[in-house]
Amino acid sequence: MSQTNAKRPLTILQKSTKKKVTIRLKNEVEYKGKMDNVDTYMNLIMTDAEEIHNDKVIANYGRVIVRGNNVLFIKLENEL
Amino acid sequence: MSQTNAKRPLTILQKSTKKKVTIRLKNEVEYKGKMDNVDTYMNLIMTDAEEIHNDKVIANYGRVIVRGNNVLFIKLENEL
Amino acid sequence: MSQTNAKRPLTILQKSTKKKVTIRLKNEVEYKGKMDNVDTYMNLIMTDAEEIHNDKVIANYGRVIVRGNNVLFIKLENEL
Amino acid sequence: MSQTNAKRPLTILQKSTKKKVTIRLKNEVEYKGKMDNVDTYMNLIMTDAEEIHNDKVIANYGRVIVRGNNVLFIKLENEL
Amino acid sequence: MSQTNAKRPLTILQKSTKKKVTIRLKNEVEYKGKMDNVDTYMNLIMTDAEEIHNDKVIANYGRVIVRGNNVLFIKLENEL
Amino acid sequence: MSQTNAKRPLTILQKSTKKKVTIRLKNEVEYKGKMDNVDTYMNLIMTDAEEIHNDKVIANYGRVIVRGNNVLFIKLENEL
Amino acid sequence: MSQTNAKRPLTILQKSTKKKVTIRLKNEVEYKGKMDNVDTYMNLIMTDAEEIHNDKVIANYGRVIVRGNNVLFIKLENEL
Repeated sequence: MSQTNAKRPLTILQKSTKKKVTIRLKNEVEYKGKMDNVDTYMNLIMTDAEEIHNDKVIANYGRVIVRGNNVLFIKLENEL
Repeated sequence: MSQTNAKRPLTILQKSTKKKVTIRLKNEVEYKGKMDNVDTYMNLIMTDAEEIHNDKVIANYGRVIVRGNNVLFIKLENEL
Repeated sequence: MSQTNAKRPLTILQKSTKKKVTIRLKNEVEYKGKMDNVDTYMNLIMTDAEEIHNDKVIANYGRVIVRGNNVLFIKLENEL
Repeated sequence: MSQTNAKRPLTILQKSTKKKVTIRLKNEVEYKGKMDNVDTYMNLIMTDAEEIHNDKVIANYGRVIVRGNNVLFIKLENEL
Repeated sequence: MSQTNAKRPLTILQKSTKKKVTIRLKNEVEYKGKMDNVDTYMNLIMTDAEEIHNDKVIANYGRVIVRGNNVLFIKLENEL
Repeated sequence: MSQTNAKRPLTILQKSTKKKVTIRLKNEVEYKGKMDNVDTYMNLIMTDAEEIHNDKVIANYGRVIVRGNNVLFIKLENEL
Repeated sequence: MSQTNAKRPLTILQKSTKKKVTIRLKNEVEYKGKMDNVDTYMNLIMTDAEEIHNDKVIANYGRVIVRGNNVLFIKLENEL
């Protein structure tokens, strides 16, 4: 298993910056918005993010930095 | 215990990329789809994944990156 | 993925010192105030912080140091 | 305490590959089957595993890779 | 981001030794007293500390060493 | 604090191999039996272990390997 | 912040070996007895320890080794 292969999910994640994503945190809350940047720990900065709980938008965030260890998954949206 | 032996479960996992898997997370939710790639931390990227809770498909994901520390287990499916 | 890119969310965070932020902790309590400083672990020191629970201010803090591992996210406010 | 002694439980575990084991995870679910391989983090790959909850078999797994940090204990069975 | 900047919250914390602080732990209990010393992990030793739960003093401690990973935040009091 | 002193609880633990111990895990279940070996992470292998819950023996284990991070404490029994 | 200062709470702890302490664990149970030794991870070995829950002694331990990560705090008693 080469080091290059081992990093691939993080590489794909890195290539998805400036795109729309939906992240779900361990507490089941979701954030949908543009992922401005992300690091290998999955710390990420989002802009124009909607906070979604039980399919309802409950708040809006201009710019928010999420601490990576709270992330359950990151869904890559097809839209820009 | 050689270093090679010690890594074997991760090596087998690595060899299962591009195959169908079902992963169960610690929160009991499952994701079934193609495992596009995985790293040694068990971060993985899946495509065409179904989210399954209590045996019911509750959502579909085109591409999703799961943070490895949430993984309970990864079941290797026999189908492609 | 260059090391510089990988650190970017933390770099943006660092550039937001002396600005107003709202942080939410894993226990759902929020603190709104001036972020005097922050380190790469997301330990941060805030001044004139309001403690907010269920949208109500429940306490005020002159100076408080939050241990980074409790942070869920940090919202960057536009105001100074 | 020599380094050799310090590793002994993992060495014994390593010698039990290809044998039948029952593992209990932190969520109280058990998996009984052949332990194909295991690493020092207790990541393990099992084949022909039964998932057991409250003494009832609730699922079967052809091949499953369990993330080591979920393991409570591994019982070494005497049978092959 | 210089290494010096990155450590600043811990530096300020270190400068507050021998002063009065209130610490809140993850289990919501608070301890108010003199912080005799603290390390970078936020292990700290307090003297003449009151244990406070729901705004009531429920115990007194002559000298107590708190393990840093339990700390939610440390409020710096203005009094000596 | 010399390195030798710092390791002392683990050294005493290491010297108690082949003796009877009762370990309590974080989930409150206890295991009483002979501690065949233990490493510095507190991974341990026990033989002829009784599983005890609420003072009742609920299972017996010929050989079981417990992952160290689950250990709350290890009581050293005086009997062989 | 010198390395010496950074370690000070652990240094004081180390100097309290052979003295009486009360430790409280994260599960709210307390152990009161002589702290025979302790390491920098707060693993500690106690002798003649009383297990205390809700102010009642519920068990006695001749010698017990507590895994450090379970420790909430250690109260230094004045008596020998």
